[in-house]
Parts: sequence; C-alpha cells; structure tokens
Amino acid sequence: MSENPPSTVPGLTPGSAADAPLPASLASTVVAVLGGTGPQGRGLARRFAAAGVPVVLGSRSAERAQEAATELDGLAGAVTGQDNAGAAAAGDVVVVAVPWDGHADLLRGLAGELAGKVVVDCVNPLGFDKRGAYVLEVEEGSAAEQAAALLPDSTVVGAFHNVSAVKLDDPDLAEVDTDVLVLGEGEDRETCDLVQDLAAVIPGVRGIYGGRLRNAHQVESLTANLISVNRRYKAHAGIRITDLGEQR
Amino acid sequence: MSENPPSTVPGLTPGSAADAPLPASLASTVVAVLGGTGPQGRGLARRFAAAGVPVVLGSRSAERAQEAATELDGLAGAVTGQDNAGAAAAGDVVVVAVPWDGHADLLRGLAGELAGKVVVDCVNPLGFDKRGAYVLEVEEGSAAEQAAALLPDSTVVGAFHNVSAVKLDDPDLAEVDTDVLVLGEGEDRETCDLVQDLAAVIPGVRGIYGGRLRNAHQVESLTANLISVNRRYKAHAGIRITDLGEQR
Repeated sequence: MSENPPSTVPGLTPGSAADAPLPASLASTVVAVLGGTGPQGRGLARRFAAAGVPVVLGSRSAERAQEAATELDGLAGAVTGQDNAGAAAAGDVVVVAVPWDGHADLLRGLAGELAGKVVVDCVNPLGFDKRGAYVLEVEEGSAAEQAAALLPDSTVVGAFHNVSAVKLDDPDLAEVDTDVLVLGEGEDRETCDLVQDLAAVIPGVRGIYGGRLRNAHQVESLTANLISVNRRYKAHAGIRITDLGEQR
Repeated sequence: MSENPPSTVPGLTPGSAADAPLPASLASTVVAVLGGTGPQGRGLARRFAAAGVPVVLGSRSAERAQEAATELDGLAGAVTGQDNAGAAAAGDVVVVAVPWDGHADLLRGLAGELAGKVVVDCVNPLGFDKRGAYVLEVEEGSAAEQAAALLPDSTVVGAFHNVSAVKLDDPDLAEVDTDVLVLGEGEDRETCDLVQDLAAVIPGVRGIYGGRLRNAHQVESLTANLISVNRRYKAHAGIRITDLGEQR
C-alpha cells in the first residue's frame, strides 16, 4: 500500500513550479474565462494555462477571443477562444471577468449555459471620477450576490477581486505576491475549496476562504483602496492575509 | 552643518525597537484613546505607550479608565485615565475605539472637546448572528464619514480597523504582523502622514495611505472577512499590502 500524501488545506500552498502537477480537484477541469480579452480575464487565463489548466477564453466577439487565445496558446494548458456563450457552455468552472457595466445582462442571458456549473465572479462594481475610484451600490449587495440571484441553478463564488491584472499578465513575472479571498456559502464548501485550489495554481498566490457571499461587497470594493495605494506609492498592490501559518 | 536624515515615506518603516526614537511628527503628541478599556482601545494604548507615546485612556467610567491606565503605566510612555470627555480634551490625537452602538451619540456629545483635533476612527459597523459577522449600512457611508459629519471642526481619518486586538494586547508578542490602512481626504495629507507614523510606532506595523474617507466603509467592513478567516483557520488574521517595496 502506498502512503497517503500529507493532507493540505485547500489553496494555502501556492503554486511554485510551472510543471507542478495540478491538484486532484482540478484534474480534467476546463476553465472558461468570460471577458477573457480584458486585462483581468486575460491575465488569469495566462496563469491558469501556464499551470496546465485547459482554458476557453470568452469574449463578445468570437474572433477577438480566438486571436487572444492564439497568443496564449503554447503554454502548458491548451487555450481556445469562443464567444461568451460558447465559452460558458464549454467550461466546467466559469470565471466572470467582465466590466461591471453589462455584468447583469451578460449573466441573465447565460443562465442556461451556466446551470449546474461553478461560476467564479471577479467583478468589482466601481466608478471613477477625478478623485479616483469609488464604490457603487449594488441592489443585491455585491456583484457576486447579483450573480447568485441571476443564476439560481449555478454555484456562485467570488474570487480574484484584488489581483493586479498587470502582474497576472506579465509573462516575465514568475510569482504574483498576493492572496485571493474566496467568498462563498458555507454549504458550498467543496466549491470554495476547488476555487481556492484554482487560485493556488498561480505561483505565489494562496486561495483563502474569506466568508459568505454577504461579505463579498467589501472585498470587491477594496480594489478602490488598492487603486489609491497604487497611485500614492506607484505600485501594483495586492493583499496578504497574515497569521495563517503553514496550515497543513 | 549636520546632514539631513534620509527622507522616508510616512508610516512605511515599522517600529522595531521599544527604545527607538519617536518620529518628529509625534514629538510631544498626547494620544487619547476613547473606549480605552475595550480590547481594541486597550491594545492600541499598550502599543502606543510601549513606544513612548503619552496616552490618556478614556472610558465611560473615569474609575475604570484609571484602573486600566494603572495596569499599562510603567511602559515607556505615561498612561493616565479619565472619562471620555476628559480624555478627548487632553489628547492632541484622539483615537475612537468604542463599539459601533453608541458611536454617534458619543461623538455628538464631544464635538466641542474634539474641535481642532485629529480624530482617528477605528470603529467597524458590524452585526453578528449565528452565521458570523455581517456589515451594517451606515447612513453617512461609513463610521469614519459619520464621525466627519458629526465633527465638522475636527480632522477625521480612519485607521486601525483590521488589527487583531488579541495581538495588540499581548505583552509577550514583540511584533504585530499587519499593515494599517489610513483613510483621509487628500487635503488632509499631513494628518494622514501623522497617523501613518503613529501606526508605525507599533513594532511590525506599517501605516499605509489607503484612500479617501468615501472608501473607508469597505476597510471597516473587511473586519467581517477577517473574522471568517479567523474562524476557518483558527488565526488572528491581519492584512499586508504587497508591492510597496522599500519606499524610501
């Protein structure tokens, strides 16, 4: 009998090597990225593909998605492109990285394609004026809760809100120095574990459970503060959660 | 002529030694802590006093404030106790660390004492139920904005929202592994710098400018997520901001 591998807490061991094996939770999982031609979506797609995850980029235009996919293909995981509906249908886990403006309409139109799937909402409802970024009120409470309301047959979690798109999309940057807070309902523990594992395929990143969806809005909104930090300190800031130790 | 010391960005060099000199911005500054007998207020008072800052603890009961002060006195900075109004009158910088319930009433009653002063609001408007902590709506937007509305003759900043009271108040813990986001208006830059310096007298802590008061609510609210993190990982979590480099 072979020994069991040491059990680890989901997400807390960040990816490190490009050729590290994927966690068992992600074996044969296809990740679709809606809004995959925008900076955040493209950056996430790059990192997932580099870790060996098969990725389907979605965009309003299938042609632009295919162009972007061609640029990213050749990393460890195959990258293809389709329109958002095609990508939603193709993915097992569907990452929503579209602008806030249009978030509700897009999801409403894809409720059928997304039924039964894991939907990972990364959207930050922010406005911008000459004083910088500010938080938009969301009737449902947060972008993630809006997604959950519009997609009653999907399992919605929030994640990847505070990760610098610039750093994700920089092929010369080996590690991204940030944690990802994963928000989801207590009864969706397994799905949150999966998304924590997905975050942790990115070298340097840990996926940390950060509470229920009712506590998603402040995580989405914190991106406004990071924009202020970036402006003041000329940085591409991220966040780390302290005191988690090794957590094995 | 003596050489100028190297200029540093306010707050970004954390305190390290108990006998390190205070930054020039804090010379002869008395810090009052309203709610100084609660866990957060007491923890902050302990750390400020340990760094050599003179502290006046405030509490509803002058007697309890004096008792708590006696326990903390004997650190590097003198600690005395008064009722909240007396402490507000005695401090140059007044830290508000009271429970959310009662925040408005307390500040409304102290507007005179607090006129012309720096008021540092640390209050997190949170509710608790069997599912954990959740965010309370605040008519003014945030506790810090409520303070600013009630104290038109004070300079209000928000800070110290996400720091573990347990860690602050542990005399055996040499360093607190967290950053403090300081929120304040752009035109109050000097005051924000001062509060960043105050944060950084705590060993291990950096004080980081985190944006305007309109972006305070999500920083206050993030404490709900840290409570979820603490529950899941059995931690006393804090946050760090990444990518700030040395910032000298």
